[in-house]
Amino acid sequence: MQVSFTADELIAWLRPIATRGLASVPVAGIAALEAAEPGDLSFLGNSKYRPAVAGSKASVILLPADYDGEPSAGQLFLLVDNPSVALATLCGRIEQQLWPKPSPGVHPSAVVEAGALVDASATVGPLCVVQSGGTVGPGSHLQAQVFVGTNASVGRDCWLMPGVVIGAECRVGDRVRLHSGVVVGSDGFGYEFVQGRHEKVPQVGIVVIEDDVEIGANSTLDRARFSRTVIGAGTKIDNLVQVAHNVIIGRHCILCAQVGIAGSTTLADYVVLGGQAGVAGHLSIGKGAKGAGQAGITSNVEPGQFVAGNPSMPYMLERRIHVLQRRLPELFKRVDALERGGT
Amino acid sequence: MQVSFTADELIAWLRPIATRGLASVPVAGIAALEAAEPGDLSFLGNSKYRPAVAGSKASVILLPADYDGEPSAGQLFLLVDNPSVALATLCGRIEQQLWPKPSPGVHPSAVVEAGALVDASATVGPLCVVQSGGTVGPGSHLQAQVFVGTNASVGRDCWLMPGVVIGAECRVGDRVRLHSGVVVGSDGFGYEFVQGRHEKVPQVGIVVIEDDVEIGANSTLDRARFSRTVIGAGTKIDNLVQVAHNVIIGRHCILCAQVGIAGSTTLADYVVLGGQAGVAGHLSIGKGAKGAGQAGITSNVEPGQFVAGNPSMPYMLERRIHVLQRRLPELFKRVDALERGGT
Amino acid sequence: MQVSFTADELIAWLRPIATRGLASVPVAGIAALEAAEPGDLSFLGNSKYRPAVAGSKASVILLPADYDGEPSAGQLFLLVDNPSVALATLCGRIEQQLWPKPSPGVHPSAVVEAGALVDASATVGPLCVVQSGGTVGPGSHLQAQVFVGTNASVGRDCWLMPGVVIGAECRVGDRVRLHSGVVVGSDGFGYEFVQGRHEKVPQVGIVVIEDDVEIGANSTLDRARFSRTVIGAGTKIDNLVQVAHNVIIGRHCILCAQVGIAGSTTLADYVVLGGQAGVAGHLSIGKGAKGAGQAGITSNVEPGQFVAGNPSMPYMLERRIHVLQRRLPELFKRVDALERGGT
Repeated sequence: MQVSFTADELIAWLRPIATRGLASVPVAGIAALEAAEPGDLSFLGNSKYRPAVAGSKASVILLPADYDGEPSAGQLFLLVDNPSVALATLCGRIEQQLWPKPSPGVHPSAVVEAGALVDASATVGPLCVVQSGGTVGPGSHLQAQVFVGTNASVGRDCWLMPGVVIGAECRVGDRVRLHSGVVVGSDGFGYEFVQGRHEKVPQVGIVVIEDDVEIGANSTLDRARFSRTVIGAGTKIDNLVQVAHNVIIGRHCILCAQVGIAGSTTLADYVVLGGQAGVAGHLSIGKGAKGAGQAGITSNVEPGQFVAGNPSMPYMLERRIHVLQRRLPELFKRVDALERGGT
Repeated sequence: MQVSFTADELIAWLRPIATRGLASVPVAGIAALEAAEPGDLSFLGNSKYRPAVAGSKASVILLPADYDGEPSAGQLFLLVDNPSVALATLCGRIEQQLWPKPSPGVHPSAVVEAGALVDASATVGPLCVVQSGGTVGPGSHLQAQVFVGTNASVGRDCWLMPGVVIGAECRVGDRVRLHSGVVVGSDGFGYEFVQGRHEKVPQVGIVVIEDDVEIGANSTLDRARFSRTVIGAGTKIDNLVQVAHNVIIGRHCILCAQVGIAGSTTLADYVVLGGQAGVAGHLSIGKGAKGAGQAGITSNVEPGQFVAGNPSMPYMLERRIHVLQRRLPELFKRVDALERGGT
Repeated sequence: MQVSFTADELIAWLRPIATRGLASVPVAGIAALEAAEPGDLSFLGNSKYRPAVAGSKASVILLPADYDGEPSAGQLFLLVDNPSVALATLCGRIEQQLWPKPSPGVHPSAVVEAGALVDASATVGPLCVVQSGGTVGPGSHLQAQVFVGTNASVGRDCWLMPGVVIGAECRVGDRVRLHSGVVVGSDGFGYEFVQGRHEKVPQVGIVVIEDDVEIGANSTLDRARFSRTVIGAGTKIDNLVQVAHNVIIGRHCILCAQVGIAGSTTLADYVVLGGQAGVAGHLSIGKGAKGAGQAGITSNVEPGQFVAGNPSMPYMLERRIHVLQRRLPELFKRVDALERGGT
């Protein structure tokens, strides 16, 4: 990426509490404190890196208001409430420069069926398909090769990356960002075992994605057996996550990569699941509960509880048991000694 | 979804053993017993929910033949052999209403190369590609943006959702349903380590998917190094599952989401693997064997055996050990006490 | 697949050290020693299968130079340095026969925007998109329905299978093979928690894939928050693998299927991770380190170390503890006995 910001622009955007020093060159990149070269902007996002500020070659450094060191020659310090948030603001500017919102309209190679409704301010990129009854709301952007099925709806100001699939009848709210390969509305995995065969239970429900949700690349969300699979407003889902049929996910949850949630499980608001965690079906995970990476959650989790392991248990217990497991060789020897009459 | 069924229609389709009561309104939706409102159909699929029948507001309830309660006013009970199977039958009707089979034909935006054979009764949707020598059988439906490679074959009455990829030479049987993003025939993961580099072993085998298989969204099936990777008839595979090269899966197996099976492993018929389970390479999993969710199966499994844990062991042993692990803090204290001379 | 090779062709390609016997029929297939029929070629790739050579019906068998048995009638032995490498060479020949390099040119259904640069010797297949500033190098092949974003670059002699997505600004080196559904440059998973909501941290870095990398179907590689996510030269990644933002992977690594690597972690050269292993964020994995399948790596790993379990520990310790865990029922009984005063 090519970026270029002057100190004045940075100050105008980030509104620092105070500044120290003067940058000798414009900012052309962003880098971590130790990797930064002149021309880079850097930041102190985690206090453990505080010692690295003094030696950093960055031309501009975002720092917390209580940082009391002095810049080197040709270096500008911007003191802000939260350097990470300030960096996010700056990256938002860069994002807009790199990927400005495209002009509205439907690319001539896209296939928009009769009866589909694409808002005049929306952009439907090359080789997209919008089937009959499908709707694309104001300001939304289907980048390329996206599929919107029969009667599916995409709200306003959404961004659907290349290859996203929205199945028939599913509903996507406003300001939703779906990365490439996301599948919304594949069939739930339901069969009845009849005479030695798995007979399919048709899956005729839908998926509802509420506002301000983001879903990572190649994640899959199954439509409900009937009724709805729901992703609550503000929830963020990473790549390669599986959400089974009839799962209800609350608001502002975080699901890290490769998490799997089995059918009919409910997550309350603010649940956080670490990478590769799995949740069995028909469970209830309480508000603000957390699951560690690779946790195998096989029973309900109370609000606020932090669980780990498989089957999952309270995190601190799991850590303690893990420590004792590593002492098993010693324990066996001690019992051997006791049996021999020694201590 | 919009559905509407009269009591007479339901009785005609589901052929109940007996009925009790009268529905005051047509059925416009399906819901669980406790969530149902007037106008909904509900069902007793699991006897543990039996107490919820009495208070349900559903207008129609599917019940087992031995249910002896009485409907409330304006409520219809349909007594059937198996309420879950009856519901599946009804959902099948709904599915046909929602997604009627499309008209045959090749969409003008699809690219069907010379030498490809699309049956006159098949439907090739917008922006699909069928390469030379590829065949699409009678009644099959490539929904949109599907890829069928050189000399690949798709049988009759298949449904390939948007974005499915069938690699060159691979073979898909009859009545196969592949969800969006399924990749059939990616290269197996095989290298020879030569002079500090991983030299690719070209993968020139194929994938054979037998009849009545269903495969979930974004699952991947690698072509064999040579010969075949096989998915047996009637097997059902969930989302995000990995099947490596030269794996042979038997008939009527169930692979839950995010399962991974390493190269050259064989699953006999009726194997069931829980979500996120992994099976190492070159193993043999016996008929009707089961693996728990997240199991790490690193040795052969006997027919009918149920294994869990990593490395996997018999399920009951794994549960017992898990219980004892939770008692490790106590055990260490007891050994401490013994060493001090107390008991 | 249909193949046909004469003994003379095989000898010309594989240059055996010596031959024994004569094949009575041309080679029309490849099969394992026990499964082979007349007309098949087989090979002894692993010495544990040595006893299977004598009974094999294969018409041609690739054998190590020290194999001292004699062929049966109508059977040809080819003695080579490394039968597995010889087989790979042969499969490369078959691959070229099956999938000859396509003619250069841009398919009329592809959308190549103004300002994109496709080399005259490259092939851009049906329904691909190359956005403005995107480049496709000499000899590269975008098979079908591939997306190359704004200013993204694909080097020379790459093969991108149907449905691959290369996000804006990302860089793909030479001789890179990307299987269907690979997503390069999805957004990293980064948020700041502000007033009860997860505010997106825009991800404005890129992904750099160096030369000779291969990436399996539906794997996802996130762009850096800023700067770069890097896949080192010669590294091979299997299907459904997640590589988070700012991860740096060294040269000649092997990541098996469904591995997940969290943000900002660094892998040195020659790291090997077994299937479904997970690596936490901000870690350093040393040169030549190995992680077992399903390992949950939560701390740095020294060069050359082999770790297993979750949380991971040295492999041999993990195995020993696992054995002792299985003896926990016995240990509890022994402590019971000690407490009763017996031994």
